[in-house]
Amino acid sequence: MKKIIVQKFGGTSVADTDKIKNVAQTVIREKNNGNDVVVVVSAMGHTTDHLVKMAKDLNPNPSAREMDMLLSTGECVSIALLTMAIQAQGYKAVSFNATQIGILTENVHSKARIVDIKTEKLKKNLDEGNIIVVAGFQGVTEDGEITTLGRGGSDTSAVALAAALNAERCDIYTDVEGVYTTDPRVVQNASRLDIISYEEMLELAHAGANVLHPRSVETAKQCAVPLRVRSSFKLENMGTLILGVEKMEIHKPVAGVAADSSQVRVVVCDVPDTPGAAATLFSCLADENVSVDMIIQSYARKVSNTNDIAFTINKEDLDKATVILKDVQAKLGAADVKIDDDIAKVSIIGAGMIDRPGIASTMFKTLAENNINIRMISTSEIKISCLINKEDAQAAVKALHDVFNLGCDEIADVKGTLPDV
Amino acid sequence: MKKIIVQKFGGTSVADTDKIKNVAQTVIREKNNGNDVVVVVSAMGHTTDHLVKMAKDLNPNPSAREMDMLLSTGECVSIALLTMAIQAQGYKAVSFNATQIGILTENVHSKARIVDIKTEKLKKNLDEGNIIVVAGFQGVTEDGEITTLGRGGSDTSAVALAAALNAERCDIYTDVEGVYTTDPRVVQNASRLDIISYEEMLELAHAGANVLHPRSVETAKQCAVPLRVRSSFKLENMGTLILGVEKMEIHKPVAGVAADSSQVRVVVCDVPDTPGAAATLFSCLADENVSVDMIIQSYARKVSNTNDIAFTINKEDLDKATVILKDVQAKLGAADVKIDDDIAKVSIIGAGMIDRPGIASTMFKTLAENNINIRMISTSEIKISCLINKEDAQAAVKALHDVFNLGCDEIADVKGTLPDV
Repeated sequence: MKKIIVQKFGGTSVADTDKIKNVAQTVIREKNNGNDVVVVVSAMGHTTDHLVKMAKDLNPNPSAREMDMLLSTGECVSIALLTMAIQAQGYKAVSFNATQIGILTENVHSKARIVDIKTEKLKKNLDEGNIIVVAGFQGVTEDGEITTLGRGGSDTSAVALAAALNAERCDIYTDVEGVYTTDPRVVQNASRLDIISYEEMLELAHAGANVLHPRSVETAKQCAVPLRVRSSFKLENMGTLILGVEKMEIHKPVAGVAADSSQVRVVVCDVPDTPGAAATLFSCLADENVSVDMIIQSYARKVSNTNDIAFTINKEDLDKATVILKDVQAKLGAADVKIDDDIAKVSIIGAGMIDRPGIASTMFKTLAENNINIRMISTSEIKISCLINKEDAQAAVKALHDVFNLGCDEIADVKGTLPDV
Repeated sequence: MKKIIVQKFGGTSVADTDKIKNVAQTVIREKNNGNDVVVVVSAMGHTTDHLVKMAKDLNPNPSAREMDMLLSTGECVSIALLTMAIQAQGYKAVSFNATQIGILTENVHSKARIVDIKTEKLKKNLDEGNIIVVAGFQGVTEDGEITTLGRGGSDTSAVALAAALNAERCDIYTDVEGVYTTDPRVVQNASRLDIISYEEMLELAHAGANVLHPRSVETAKQCAVPLRVRSSFKLENMGTLILGVEKMEIHKPVAGVAADSSQVRVVVCDVPDTPGAAATLFSCLADENVSVDMIIQSYARKVSNTNDIAFTINKEDLDKATVILKDVQAKLGAADVKIDDDIAKVSIIGAGMIDRPGIASTMFKTLAENNINIRMISTSEIKISCLINKEDAQAAVKALHDVFNLGCDEIADVKGTLPDV
């Protein structure tokens, strides 16, 4: 039986007909390697923005169901056009939307999760020698309602299809050349990683390395689908392969360094030290879907019998959180709520740090030597994060990248852009 | 039970968000009349042209299946946007594509015929108080393949939905104010018909009055769905109602006059008078899908024992027909094939001419009085057509419009444009 390769191309890769012709060549190259190929595409370039603009013009608060009906059309245009481009080269190809395949999701609009993918039609068409082109980002409910998968949706479609088809690999073609040891816009000799584990990639993604949406990495990890991130435009570059940690031989304790300036620090001051105070605070935030990242509770002050509780949240949740915190402050009898948005979080990530002592102390020492003050610390098995002043973020990344020997000899030639959905 | 009104809006009626807001108002007006409303819409303005252009850029000969996948997206955009516009006014609305409803067609791409429409989902949603917005022009096969209905497709979708739902009426909103006694661009006092029969409308449509595609009128006739053609922009004008002839009281023998300059006349000269000669000629043309309209075979000449066979075809079929005719000429041993494209067909149409003698002679006399030479004649129960020189067409239409008293006192204020799909 032939191996199946799933390829995913984002909106910038199919932004116009010339780019679609390029994608067709990349697809055909894989077919000519002797593999069966399933291609997942996003909507062309700025299609989604254009559709959203029209929707907002008609209804400031459009229903999520109709937004899904509207936005799902973008991918349906791309799949038909790419299929025509492949056929023009004399190859058999066929396009399918999510309804036709049966990419079944929960009955939730705008951010549905995939629950099942029917594979009969896909397998039949592959057996007939077809290249299959599938609309990413969309799904369908048991009732035939059209849903969309939310941010990172097309990546998730590709990974889920690869899992359902037991594919050899899922290749995510994008406008960066792979996963780097840190942001090449900050550190010029950042080096591309040939290989990285799902876990490291997840921590890097959460820490601000905008290559893959964490959700698609999580899906790949759960289903053990090997992922490759590579450039649509530099096919000679093999990009970065993302695998389960058990399949990797680990060389370096630290795989990458990331900085994230999208958070703000909140301190709830002088919270009376009663049982359940923290629980009240964080459940109120959770009820309103405010994600909390780093949390530190100071030791109770003996004299006043109060605590300070500090944590970080995303900037975009700040308005919502401010309203909630006012309530909670009164409820808990806290003295004050302070907001600090002049912060950054730097993280070192590496599956190799498990059972290797001294990594954390090297990080702290390096920051100290560079006169960078650490304001909060949090750790996981494969990550250590420090909250520092925003102005120190670039210096911190450079110093940590150096001390853990992550640089390469060349200067990376990477346009630092965000990945497309 | 509430009455159901089906409304159809073409591409020019939904060309931008302002026009979509207008359509929403028209839909809501009908809902406020106490009716259940099902709306069928086409793709926005030039969407289809834009999609076709991209397709041709990628593949000069794109597959019909993928063209259907591509073009069907246009209507899916319109339905979501119109639904949002209706919801913005506080009304319940929901959009459905053909797959979601089950508008089942034959398994033929680019010109499929509807074979069945499932009504459960429509009825359930109407019962819940929804205005339903349906994608026109598209269908789905039993296998879930997306099809399109070809020219006049959205009109046909609307009529077929009206029939399936046993609707009170199907209102076709367009950019003309109704059906006129003749082309208002030619005859300034052409009058709008309040009422016309399906049969007359069919003859007018075939004769060149570009208001409704004949296919939708035929469907309406078969299913006895009352059709109303009316302006999207002048709602005070009730347009033209199209009904079965049995429901009409006929006042005038002639309902309208039409001219058609899209045909050419072909004469196959000196065809030996053997049995089956005409059959051979016309079956060769039919095999290649060349439609033949008027046919005249002259009496056999005694001396040479040959006939002339004259007929008309559409200009767009001329190249194809020329090739066929060369073959047929040799096969039949005919002397020559002559083409004349300097012709026009004028027709008078009216269910009232059945059993009313003298109509034909009035027509011929009127043309003669205006020095217009008649080159061929054909008749049906409710139509008389004369082939004349193209330069005489306008004079002929004016004279016939006058002699049958079709004019009104006012001058029609009509933009003479073709209807949209």
